Amino acid sequence: MPYSEKILRALGKENIEVGDKLELVSGDFKLVGELMPKTEVGDPDTFVIKIDNGYNVGIRHAAASKVKLISKGTGAPKFESATMKSKPGLPKVAMIYTGGTIGSKIDYKTGGVYMLIKPGELLNEVPELAEMANLEIRHLFSIASEDISYMEWQTMAKEVESAFADGARGVVITMGTDAMHYTAAVLSFMLKNLSGPVVITGAQRSSDRGSSDAFFNLACAVKIAAESDIAEIGVCMHASSSDDRCAFTRGTKVRKMHTSRRDAFRPVNDRPIAYVDNKLQIRYNNDHSKIGPRKGKTEAVTGFEPKVALIKSHPNFDPSILDAYVEKGFRGIIIEGTGLGHVPASTTHKEYLWLDHIKKAIQEGVVVGMTSQCLYGRVHPDVYRNLRLVSNLGVVYCEDMTPETAYAKLGWLLGNYKPEEAKELLSKNIAGEIKERTEADEFLN
Amino acid sequence: MPYSEKILRALGKENIEVGDKLELVSGDFKLVGELMPKTEVGDPDTFVIKIDNGYNVGIRHAAASKVKLISKGTGAPKFESATMKSKPGLPKVAMIYTGGTIGSKIDYKTGGVYMLIKPGELLNEVPELAEMANLEIRHLFSIASEDISYMEWQTMAKEVESAFADGARGVVITMGTDAMHYTAAVLSFMLKNLSGPVVITGAQRSSDRGSSDAFFNLACAVKIAAESDIAEIGVCMHASSSDDRCAFTRGTKVRKMHTSRRDAFRPVNDRPIAYVDNKLQIRYNNDHSKIGPRKGKTEAVTGFEPKVALIKSHPNFDPSILDAYVEKGFRGIIIEGTGLGHVPASTTHKEYLWLDHIKKAIQEGVVVGMTSQCLYGRVHPDVYRNLRLVSNLGVVYCEDMTPETAYAKLGWLLGNYKPEEAKELLSKNIAGEIKERTEADEFLN
Repeated sequence: MPYSEKILRALGKENIEVGDKLELVSGDFKLVGELMPKTEVGDPDTFVIKIDNGYNVGIRHAAASKVKLISKGTGAPKFESATMKSKPGLPKVAMIYTGGTIGSKIDYKTGGVYMLIKPGELLNEVPELAEMANLEIRHLFSIASEDISYMEWQTMAKEVESAFADGARGVVITMGTDAMHYTAAVLSFMLKNLSGPVVITGAQRSSDRGSSDAFFNLACAVKIAAESDIAEIGVCMHASSSDDRCAFTRGTKVRKMHTSRRDAFRPVNDRPIAYVDNKLQIRYNNDHSKIGPRKGKTEAVTGFEPKVALIKSHPNFDPSILDAYVEKGFRGIIIEGTGLGHVPASTTHKEYLWLDHIKKAIQEGVVVGMTSQCLYGRVHPDVYRNLRLVSNLGVVYCEDMTPETAYAKLGWLLGNYKPEEAKELLSKNIAGEIKERTEADEFLN
Repeated sequence: MPYSEKILRALGKENIEVGDKLELVSGDFKLVGELMPKTEVGDPDTFVIKIDNGYNVGIRHAAASKVKLISKGTGAPKFESATMKSKPGLPKVAMIYTGGTIGSKIDYKTGGVYMLIKPGELLNEVPELAEMANLEIRHLFSIASEDISYMEWQTMAKEVESAFADGARGVVITMGTDAMHYTAAVLSFMLKNLSGPVVITGAQRSSDRGSSDAFFNLACAVKIAAESDIAEIGVCMHASSSDDRCAFTRGTKVRKMHTSRRDAFRPVNDRPIAYVDNKLQIRYNNDHSKIGPRKGKTEAVTGFEPKVALIKSHPNFDPSILDAYVEKGFRGIIIEGTGLGHVPASTTHKEYLWLDHIKKAIQEGVVVGMTSQCLYGRVHPDVYRNLRLVSNLGVVYCEDMTPETAYAKLGWLLGNYKPEEAKELLSKNIAGEIKERTEADEFLN
């Protein structure tokens, strides 16, 4: 999708083309950066510029009070999709690029942004890739993962479907890390009958830093996509703070547990499916022959209900806020309760009693699920009286799901099923999100 | 505080006294249990009965459609506070009882509830206590911790102040575990110039179970209260899933990380201050001589603003919900952002853009703080552009505080300071909640 007429006019006046450096003033902010080509997603009426730290910022035309050319660039960055020169006999792996820290690198000499997305440069950085697979690069969009919405999830799921239809043996998705576990969970529900592995990866440190995890993560991810016989959706990131191995963890059981460490992505109530060591050998954790056999034809079921809330309870929480969600038309609520799945249920302070508000939401047809802010362990609907008071209202206790996975699941269920079916399915395992039994080594590991 | 006239009349009609078994019908529920004495806190117009699992349930008089005697009991349970027979030379430790799993035990023969609160019985279970301290039992209230509000926190802080004023050398608080870390954080801010250690403990498994952690936790807690020279507020609970040691962890750095394991309480971005091993020896983790020296006279500063929200961001979060909080008169908001402290800030989907809603809240005088749902690590206001867009609005980035501790801190600050002072103090260390540096072994440990 090209820029709008209005934007093209403002750019034309200053003779600004894609790749040129410009100054944009919006409100109190003055931004200087490189004009980006418009991506597939988003408002054509918004300037997209790449600022010095490598991130794209969008400024609406209406909000831009000044647009000024700073210097001419060398033309549009090579963002287009590409297939690397094919080697006979190697499997085809699609690499879907969506933005985030992994995809950008600052050239400190020119201040320009060096894109990992150019196949030749990719090979310079990770020469092992050429021996593992014929890579087909698909540039989908460039978005910081905290800005991703369900619309991008739908686009990503369809792109995976299309990549498999075009003959890919496996798929790698590169993205920002903030919403990586939300995205991995959503895609786990959206993608059915997987033809091969779908491996999501990214970087906690940008690729121009010596400590960057980008290249090893990418090499391990491509290895799994090219070779593994498990048709599963998972996250492949560093398993320790050194470069000794990456873990491939199921998309419904993984969570970002650290703001900045390279080994931030951890299984919660699960073990990784596999590790990839620094010789790029895959080591499966358990008997993996029973999970995720490759099926015929990947299908993307992309319905998603955005009006689902994830609400964390805490002491003194004002439960009348649930009414506000119901009034805003929300159709699902995942509560992040305390301990085994508690909210205040017997307090004598009536203003903090949740029961009536939950009851009202359920009467209005809202599906309500319960998870635990402990993250590890399992909620239970009846160990204590207070738990029974809540579950008796019709709240679904979401077993050992993380709150984030329960959120992703309920959004997907309500986007594709009737409320009563969604409620029924919320407590049934669909994509490995519920495990019957938790092992001791699945805590803080 | 006694029961109300209305309740006493309903009980009198059936000749029901405290300790008798009765049946109460309320709406769809029929409850059978033992009538409890009215506790200090809560509505006098509410029946309190102890049901079979050991928990107290409150039923409002207006909601009770039937009240019927089932069987006469043996009189009021011995709930009164008591001081155990004194041994010369032993330090005096106050034990403040507030409810929760640790305080109850089911007698399977009679179905009655066996209260750990009776000093003699306590000694039967944990004979080591008599060698460690002269225990003064203070029965404050009996509440499941998920039902605790700021009013109970204020009562608890005042009780600690009073216990030290009455000559206690240290204080142990027993409580339920769900809100234990919230409570520990709040008390860390409320109690100033500590005269000695304040040790919060509880149990993940009730004391009638073979796997109960109640007795070892209690012994370790009393040991620290009686002996440690650190005047700090912390949580003392199992450090592993066996009975080999307990960890004593700073109240502002501890978090319940598992729904049911005995070693659920873990330091986040910190190490425990000390361990107590199974010979009841205290082993300090670091050089502890610099922290928490015992001061003269403990003072409780108990202001607390209940209109503070803890809001977890997630993809597709509707940020107009922030306006609803502002309209409800909230004075503080702690955001649990993703990664380094992100909320959608550059998305082209305007309905998911947080910036205007945060700006509006701040303009209305609301203090807004940012934490990370990763839990481990540290938020940062300017690594990425999106972070700067948020921090430029005046959002306080709360360093390495957990969301729960930041919530406790902001509630306390707004209860005792003007908003501008509260905002200033939110990012300054007050009670060990901010550490300059995080060590590698403070992740998932």
